[in-house]
This record gives sequence, structure tokens and C-alpha cells, in this order.
Amino acid sequence: MTDHTIARPGSGSSAGSAAVPVAGPAAARPVVPPGTHRGAGIGEVRLDGGFWGRLQETNGRATLRHCLDWMERLGWVANFDRVAAGTTGGERPGWQFSDSEVYKLLEALAWEHGRTGDPGANELLEALTERVAAAQDPDGYLNTCFGHAGQPGRYTDLSSGHELYCTGHLLQAAVARLRTVGEDRLVAVARRAADHVCREFGEGAREELCGHPEIELGLAELGRALGEPRYTEQARLFVERRGRGTLRPIALLGPAYFQDDVPVREADAWRGHAVRALYLAAGAADVAVDTLDDDLLAAVERQWTRSVERRTYLTGGMGSRHQDEGFGDDWELPPDRAYCETCAGVASVMVSWRLFLATGEVRYADLMERTLHNVVATSPRTDGRAFFYANPLQQRVAGADVLPDAVNPRAEGGVRAPWFDVSCCPTNVARTLASWHTYAASVDGDTVTLLQYAAADLSLTLDAGGEVGLRVRTQYPLDGTVRVEVTAAPDRPVTLRLRVPHWADGATVAVATVAVATVAGAAPGAVPGSPPAPVAPGWAEVRRVLVPGDVVTLVLPTAPRFTWPDPRVDAVRGSVAVERGPLVLCLESGDLPDGFAMEDVRIDPATPPRPADDGAVARAFVVGPPDHRPGRPPFGPDPAPPAARAELEARFVPYHRWAERGASTMRVFVPTA
Amino acid sequence: MTDHTIARPGSGSSAGSAAVPVAGPAAARPVVPPGTHRGAGIGEVRLDGGFWGRLQETNGRATLRHCLDWMERLGWVANFDRVAAGTTGGERPGWQFSDSEVYKLLEALAWEHGRTGDPGANELLEALTERVAAAQDPDGYLNTCFGHAGQPGRYTDLSSGHELYCTGHLLQAAVARLRTVGEDRLVAVARRAADHVCREFGEGAREELCGHPEIELGLAELGRALGEPRYTEQARLFVERRGRGTLRPIALLGPAYFQDDVPVREADAWRGHAVRALYLAAGAADVAVDTLDDDLLAAVERQWTRSVERRTYLTGGMGSRHQDEGFGDDWELPPDRAYCETCAGVASVMVSWRLFLATGEVRYADLMERTLHNVVATSPRTDGRAFFYANPLQQRVAGADVLPDAVNPRAEGGVRAPWFDVSCCPTNVARTLASWHTYAASVDGDTVTLLQYAAADLSLTLDAGGEVGLRVRTQYPLDGTVRVEVTAAPDRPVTLRLRVPHWADGATVAVATVAVATVAGAAPGAVPGSPPAPVAPGWAEVRRVLVPGDVVTLVLPTAPRFTWPDPRVDAVRGSVAVERGPLVLCLESGDLPDGFAMEDVRIDPATPPRPADDGAVARAFVVGPPDHRPGRPPFGPDPAPPAARAELEARFVPYHRWAERGASTMRVFVPTA
Repeated sequence: MTDHTIARPGSGSSAGSAAVPVAGPAAARPVVPPGTHRGAGIGEVRLDGGFWGRLQETNGRATLRHCLDWMERLGWVANFDRVAAGTTGGERPGWQFSDSEVYKLLEALAWEHGRTGDPGANELLEALTERVAAAQDPDGYLNTCFGHAGQPGRYTDLSSGHELYCTGHLLQAAVARLRTVGEDRLVAVARRAADHVCREFGEGAREELCGHPEIELGLAELGRALGEPRYTEQARLFVERRGRGTLRPIALLGPAYFQDDVPVREADAWRGHAVRALYLAAGAADVAVDTLDDDLLAAVERQWTRSVERRTYLTGGMGSRHQDEGFGDDWELPPDRAYCETCAGVASVMVSWRLFLATGEVRYADLMERTLHNVVATSPRTDGRAFFYANPLQQRVAGADVLPDAVNPRAEGGVRAPWFDVSCCPTNVARTLASWHTYAASVDGDTVTLLQYAAADLSLTLDAGGEVGLRVRTQYPLDGTVRVEVTAAPDRPVTLRLRVPHWADGATVAVATVAVATVAGAAPGAVPGSPPAPVAPGWAEVRRVLVPGDVVTLVLPTAPRFTWPDPRVDAVRGSVAVERGPLVLCLESGDLPDGFAMEDVRIDPATPPRPADDGAVARAFVVGPPDHRPGRPPFGPDPAPPAARAELEARFVPYHRWAERGASTMRVFVPTA
Repeated sequence: MTDHTIARPGSGSSAGSAAVPVAGPAAARPVVPPGTHRGAGIGEVRLDGGFWGRLQETNGRATLRHCLDWMERLGWVANFDRVAAGTTGGERPGWQFSDSEVYKLLEALAWEHGRTGDPGANELLEALTERVAAAQDPDGYLNTCFGHAGQPGRYTDLSSGHELYCTGHLLQAAVARLRTVGEDRLVAVARRAADHVCREFGEGAREELCGHPEIELGLAELGRALGEPRYTEQARLFVERRGRGTLRPIALLGPAYFQDDVPVREADAWRGHAVRALYLAAGAADVAVDTLDDDLLAAVERQWTRSVERRTYLTGGMGSRHQDEGFGDDWELPPDRAYCETCAGVASVMVSWRLFLATGEVRYADLMERTLHNVVATSPRTDGRAFFYANPLQQRVAGADVLPDAVNPRAEGGVRAPWFDVSCCPTNVARTLASWHTYAASVDGDTVTLLQYAAADLSLTLDAGGEVGLRVRTQYPLDGTVRVEVTAAPDRPVTLRLRVPHWADGATVAVATVAVATVAGAAPGAVPGSPPAPVAPGWAEVRRVLVPGDVVTLVLPTAPRFTWPDPRVDAVRGSVAVERGPLVLCLESGDLPDGFAMEDVRIDPATPPRPADDGAVARAFVVGPPDHRPGRPPFGPDPAPPAARAELEARFVPYHRWAERGASTMRVFVPTA
């Protein structure tokens, strides 16, 4: 754990420090804390097909409409109409947090419009905004589940009611709007809602908090985007109030469920409901950065470190328990009962992104890559119309088919479902994919950093002015060659940095140019324009006067590799996983020969896996079945492993596409022979 | 799986077949289906100290009063008074099933009085009965949560309301009373309640069922005890109605939660909420036996076989998931998140007992031994005033102290608690311990079988008349020598059978007598009175004219032994457990040298464990800590196990007493070196 001192505004390198509203697609970005780095604006990067480009395109074409259709069908949008019309009553469709799904869709639509300029997305957004705005009470309160005729009173159930949680998502949607088109009706609605929250929950007023963190995040982002310190201060109050046991417990769940057990700045690890823990951490990071609170930032970094090192799956997934959708104890990482909620993956990316921007540490971008490829990308079906909610690493029983028109009552099940009873994940995927490319690069002074690799055209504005244009061409993640061609550059030395992921032992970088350059991190003797030079995980840096036509080629090794669990992770002891580049692979039952059971496969760890199609092949054996003693629990005096009865070429496929060829059993970690 | 044809009444060997009320301690037993065997009457066996005698004595002296005090304090008993007084309202202490705790305590008091003749227990029972009886409506309906002023209407929430569940426990309490003192006020109350249920839920009436099985069991037992076929028929109707998806689902739980997914006679394994699944199975077994339904009995046996072989822990514990307190998939047996609810252990014993009585198969008695010693005996603290609810096989974080006066909101936590918010386990332990000795022996024709070993004096009435008196002396379970002295016997040949548990490879039996005897199962050449002869797991039989003074000595090997998981049990791969006799042992952090972490212990599997005190010592190493890469999830490219840095004598103690010397971390399965 490194301690960081947050860069003070005006103290040096960052131009992102001033909390000044910025508008227009080029400047827009999900969050822009005044740290040492700023993320790419939504107009600064344009994906050009490839892995993420296709996901983003499908999201825009199919998922946004899919989400809207389901919410119309279920009456979640009409809930706003009923409030506006004064026709609420005791019966209201949807959970108490369904408003937030509408807001997350608004955020996704705002990014989508900012990204593409598509007037259709803008029209949908404006129409939805009108319906939302019409439901806002004169004093700024806005919620369709509380406070109106036939409903419980405002803020009568802060533990479970999710009112402030919903408001937080409204504010995030407004920030997306603000950063793509500037002030508009949605921003005005959000301002009134935020002002209402500050009046109701400010110091000396109702000193309470919401059971589900999110308002912290929304207030901090909106405060930063509008330059409104009252919102930041209110976010800070909510962060500080938590962890003091003031929330009324929910049924059998203790205060850790909503992080009300230990104050944020005293906690060492994330615990309880994973999405809550991570939204809170993201909000705390925003508050820390905006209030120059080094102690609070250090607390979030400390929690990240311990939780990543001990409570995070190979996929980057977080959440080991179904019961409370929560983190488990250290080393408690069961593959079969992994919850790894998609929303927790989204939230983890949000936290790591903030910590990267604040500290510039590569490990945060590394975890984002892992989580984006293996949790976020795993959730949506290729057609963008069905989703995983939970993302286990082992499926023992093939899922039952989900009816295409049915609301899935369960967060689990081994097949992607079009919609859920609790349907937080689809809209969370939608807003993340719509803005994915803004995570791909960052700017810090005269340094441009490529953080995530995808075929893209970039045009990044440097803090001191001037523009760096880059054309990235790659088949990443399946192929590790990333070709970066300079298309524009100022007439002064700049630094181009490329992230070398932690798994990329044996990476090389080559610079094709006639000019003088320095490749930091490259081995001695690496001459620009010369053959590829080794570069260690971390950063590959090129500092020089860039000239259009210069090409930097990073080659990351994407041969399949075995990955072993830390011996303290009991649940997958004696098993091995196969990774390829940033992708976690898995074994699916459909790829096993007939008559071979998943539970009888053993990997030969002495034979390295080799690439095949989009995955890998590993040498394996089929064993057993074991000599089970009838009528006894499955434990006995015989230590001998079952004998091999056949050899097998075990085909591993990308985990993010599992169960797409039909319901299957699956495992990421496979026992070794 | 063996199919059994249920013995028809009058068809042969059993005298337990007639559904005739029997009264008086000597005849009393928890259930007496008309199968081939009958369990011991409560007055036929008297424990004399030892492992179970002490548990039973503490139960009678401390636990019964403890339960009553808590239920008085929390108002669960006063709920009956309020119904009687007509002062019910919207606010009612306790969950909707709290009446059942009062009934289970009544059952325990009935057995305790039957066992000891203690007038104190009888007075408590009669006083409680009066308060319960006063709350019964004129038509027989009896429930303190529904159907009265300010309460929801009768049977308006069959999925979650537990009304029939509570009634089932009332009927079981009445059966205990009926079989210890005969007809009384409690039995009369139960009759009226059962009649009410038959009227309300009979064929052509309200053809529904209760979300929590138990009424099936209560009706079948009461029907059998009173010779009332209407009750048996109503039990049958409830069994047949289940599994057809008619119960309204509870929140995010599917129909498998309450076994409403597959009809009972079609299901292959237990699934969903474990206690529900097992109470249902027990009720179905009773119905099968009483209605001579071989198909239904075969279904229950089939479910037992698959569930024991694939979904049961080494301790006999059942329930792999916290989320729904339920069974997991096949082979899903995580040690750390094992739920293994104490009540599921009690219920499992109830099911196995019924199947043993119906079939005579030793495997059922074997599982009862495992579950009784390692689940039921694990729950109560030595003083009988605190309990485990969940019984995990691994505790990663030492529990927090439970305040002696606090209601524990959680079913888990690593320490025994005096009472729970949902407090089903203490009274379930109480009724089981009070009647434990009735499980110790059975009678079939002229065969007397010792099923469970404990220091005891037995006087068993044979079906055809005559009495066999036995004095059993043993230090079981720590010592495997069981000395059985004949104290009385009829003047004709009888068979004395002793169970040889499945784990007891190397057992011997010796008969000291001057008369001719046959030791079936003994090696050829084993001569009565000669040195001990080997006997295989199953039954050791002595058939002869027994003479007072004859001594049969069974020696079961109780040297500690390693036990290995079936290779399909992923969660404990590469780990080994230590057992001793019927006891599962465990490693507790308090027994590790300072500075050694539980997660770093590795057992040397090449060195057999040796006995020590009440447990065992195994050779072990302390390894690591592993070379964890900072800032990454706990998975990496290094397959090398961490190096040993010290040798250790690992002390294993009985699992059933873990956490009694203070909160600790614990594990049953320990990785091997």
C-alpha cells in the first residue's frame, strides 16, 4: 500500500482540478476528479469494431431499447406518470428501487447520444426526462414509491427504502447529460433533487443516511460537474455518517450488510453487500479527491488492496455469498456459489477508475481490464437482450431455459435472462458499455496513456493544449499485438504510455520512427526503430516529439497459460485455471465428448495449454468414477485418486461467452491429474 | 437401493403394526410404525451417565427451563394468553411460527416426564397446556398469529404463515403425552385441532397445503397413536398435494424451497430448505408405512440414498446453503458455508429412524449415529444453555462473543448463543435429547437389537412376550469396548444383535457363556467364550437361550483415522479429516502454537494419527506464508506449494465441542502436505 498525497488544485500537473462545468462531447467523461489524471472525454475516443466496439454497438442498437421496453411493459416508467397524475395508491409495480433503473437508462442514453450524436437516443432521453420531471414534487423530492397518496411517507424506511439511492442515480444521469450536452431539463431536475437532499439531510437537519450507498456518488459527481460545493459537502456528510450503526437492521442481516458497522475511514476491507460496499467506496474516493482528504483516500486504497488480494475472484468478480449478495471472509472464494454480481463488477470498475485517476497506479487499470473482460462482458448475451446477474465460476447443473418473455425471479440459474425481478444489472451494463471507451485512455499534463486496448481512433487534448491523435489497431484480447499509429501531435515532446498488464511477462515494444526516442522500461540497447525490445509489466513509455506516421507496436503474450490459486483459497485447491491474455477461459460440458462428466476431468499440469480458435486446449484425463460406498456420505478411508480411464484434449473457451451455445455445466478451475 | 415391501398388519413378524393407543412409559416411543421393528419404549431404556446420559441429564436439568424462561421473557407463551383474553392486536412478539417452539417444549417436557416421572416437568407441562388450551377457538383452530382481532385471517398466507406447521408440532407433543401418560388435556386439544384441519383441508374442502411441512408428520403420528384413520388420510392428502406448484412463491425463492416443485413420489433427491425437505420425508415415510404404500416408501428411500451419498457432510449435517437454509447441488459441500442446521440434523435422525424401523437396514442406524454425535450433540453448550444453529465445518474468523442476555439475530457466528430470533433449534434439541434413549434399541419378534451405544440398563419386551434385560457398560464413543451383560431373558432362544458401524473395520465380538451360541458374522472358528472373533460392519448376532450373566463384548476400533473426501467434493479437495470412532474431530486455533495461522497448517498423510486425550494428534507442517503478489487477486502463475517452515503436532479435538473453550477458528478438513 502506497500513501498518496492528493494533488492540490494549482499544485502542478493536472488541469482537471478545477470543478468547472464542461460541456460538449469532447470534454465529457464519467468522472473527472481533480487528481493527476483525467479520463478520456466521450468524444476523444471512437471504437472501431473489435471486441469492445461490437459490445458497444450492440448495446446502442439493442440493449437500450430492450431495457426501455421491459420497463414500460412492467409499469416502472408509468410509475412516474401516476405520481404526476396523482393516481398513486397502495399497489405499485416494481421494487422500491425501480426508479433507479429508469435513471440508469437515462444515463446510458445520455452517453449513447454523446457518443454517437444519434437523435433517436436523444429523443428517447428527452421523452423519459419529461415523464420523470412531471413526477417531481414542488420541493424537489422525486420518488414514485414513497410520499404520495396511498404510499408510505417520505424517508420512513431509510434502511430498505432506497429513496436516496434512486436520487443518486438520477444525479449520475444528469452528470452524463451535463457532460455531453450541458445544462438541460434533466440537469435542472437533478439540481432540484440535490437541493432537496441537502436541505433534508444537511448538518443540523435529518442526520441520517440511506441503506444503499449511491447518493454519495451522485452528489459528488454533480457537485464536481456543476462546481457546487454544497453537493460535495452533503456527499461528505453521508460518507462520514456511515459505519456508526444508526441504520435500522434488516431482518436477519447485520449492520455490515450496508457497511454501517465500521466508519469508512477506519475499515480495512470491503464487507457486506458488494454493490453497496463498492458504490460507497467510489463515493468516498470522489469525496476524498474533491476535499483533498488524503486519509480518506488512503482508507479506500487500503480496502481495495485487502479486498482484491483476498476477496476477489480470478475474473475480477466480487461477492462470495448469495445470502446477502456480499463479500465473504478473506480467502472465501467458492467457484460454484460465487455471486459476482454483474453490478458489483460495474461498481468495482468505478472504484478502480477513481483510484487510478487519483494515483496513477497501474494496478487499478489492471483490475479494470480483468473485470471488464470477465465480468462486465460476460453479462450480456451476444444479441444484447439477455443478461447474467450472478457470474459463478462453476456451474454444476445446466441451467433451465429462460422463457424469452418471462421475468426471471432469480439472480442465478446458469442462463442469461431477458429481465429480472430485481433488474439492476441490464441498465448497469448499458451505461457502462455506452461509456466504455472513456476508460481506454487518460491524459496527465503532456502524457497520454493507453489504459485499455481496443481498435479505436483517439484524439486527446493535452492539458497545456495541443492534440495527440492515435490510431490503434488490434485484435485484442485474442491477439496481443497492439499497433499504435500517431495521426496528430503537437510540435513539442510528449509522452505516450502504454499499459503492460501484470500477466504480460515477455511483452515487447517497438517504435518505428526515424526520430530519436526513449523507451523507458525497455531493456538496454533497445533502439527505436530496432527490433522489439522486452518491456516489463507496468508502463511502456515513449517520450519524444511525435510525428504523424510514427508507429508504436506493443506485443503482449496471449499464449494460453495455467493460473493457480493462492494456497489459502481453499475452494479451488488442487485445481488450475487457463487464461489467455486478459481472458479467463472455462470448460463447458458441450465441449466434452459424450459420456464424459465434467466432474471426472483432470488437467495434466505438466503439459502447457496451447492456443485453439478463440480459446485453448489442455491435455487432460478422464478419471473414475470413484468407488463410492453406497448409503454413506461421500467421505471414506481411501486416499487414492480415481484412475485415469481416457486421455482428453480439453477445449477451453472464453468464460465471457459461456452458456451462449445452450445451457451447460461449466468450470473455470479444473482439478489437476 | 433396495425395494422393500412393507409388512402388512398380521403378515408376520411385527407386533407394532396395530394402530392401537398405548399408554404408560414402558410402551412409549416417538413413532411406532407398523413395520418390522419397533423402537424402544421410553421406559425400556435408562441411560447411566456417559456421553448421552450426561447430555440428557443436562437437558432435563437446564435446557427445558432455559427454553421456557426465554419464551416467557419474549412473550411467546403470553401470545396464547392474549388470544384467550381476546386482547390480540397488530403487534405480536415473535415470528409467525413461535407457537411451534412452545409445542416442541411441551413435547420435550412430556418425554422428560415419561423418562423420569419428575412431577416438576409434569406441572410445567400441565400449566403450559392450560394456557395453550385456553387459546383454542371453539372449532378447534389454534394459532396465536392469525385469525383473531387485529391479525390476518386464518390461512390467508399458507406459503409463509406456518399455521399448519405449528399445528403439526402440537400433534407431535400430544403423541408424546399419549405415549407417556395416555389421554389428557393436551391430547384433547390436539384432537380438536386435528379434526379442524381435516374439516378445513380434507378432500373437496380447501385443497391446499402449508409452506412448511410438519402437519403430515403430526397427523400421521397422532393417527397411528389414536388409531384414527382420518388423520392418516389427511396426512396422505397433504403429502400428495405437494410438488404441484400450488404454493404462492416466497420473494426470490422458487417452489423447490418448500418442495413444491416435484411430487414427493417422483423426486430423486432432497432439495430446497433442508428442514422442510426432511420433515416432509419423515411424514411421507409415516404415511407410506401406515397406508402400505411401497411406492411412496421407495421414493423416500431413493431420496435418502442420493442425498446422503451426494449432499451430506461428514458430520451427517445437511444443508449446504445459507441463502435458503437448503440443500445444494450434488457434491456441493462447502465446509465454511455449510449450513447444517441443527434442526436439519434432528429431522435427518427422524427420517433415518423411520426408514430403519420400516426396513431394518443398518445404514439408517449408521447415519443416525453420525448425525447424533456430530450435529445434534454439537449444538448445545455443555451447560445446556446455549446452542449452535448452523454447524459449519470450517470457521475462518473467530466468532464474536454473544451476550448472555441477548437474542442472537443470526443463525451463524461461530459461538453458541442462548437464544435466537428464529429459535427453532433449542427446543428441537430438547425434545430429541429427552427421548434419545428410545433410539438406542429396537425389537423385532424375538430379536433385540442394540442400535446406539451408551451406558444403559435395558428391559425390552419381546413381541411375543417375555423380557430381555441388558446392562450395557461402555465409555463409548471415546472407547470402543461395549460390554453387554444379560440381566434377564425368557426361557427360549432369542437373538441379540449389535450394530457394527460401517467405519468399524477390525471390530471383534466375544461371548462369554457356558451355553451354546452362534455368532453370525463372526469368522469361522469363533467359539463362544473363546477369544474375540472378527466381525464385519453390519450386525453381530448372538442367537441362543440367553442366561443372566452372559456377557457379549463388542470391541469397535476407535483409533483415530484419516478420512478423505470423494474426489467429486470439490470444496475440500486435497484435504483430509480425522475421525475417531463415531466422532468427527477438528483443529481449533486455540490448540495451535502462537504465531501459527490455521490456513498454514498441512497434515502429513503418511503418518497415521495417534490417539491423545479425547481426540488425536497428527503430524503436520506449517508452511508459507505464500508469496502473494500485492494488488492482485489471489491467483497467479506459480504452481509451487509454499515451503514447510516448521513441524507441528496438530491436536485434533471432538468437533462436537468446538468453540467451547472460547471463540476460535476451526477446520475439520485440513490440507495435506
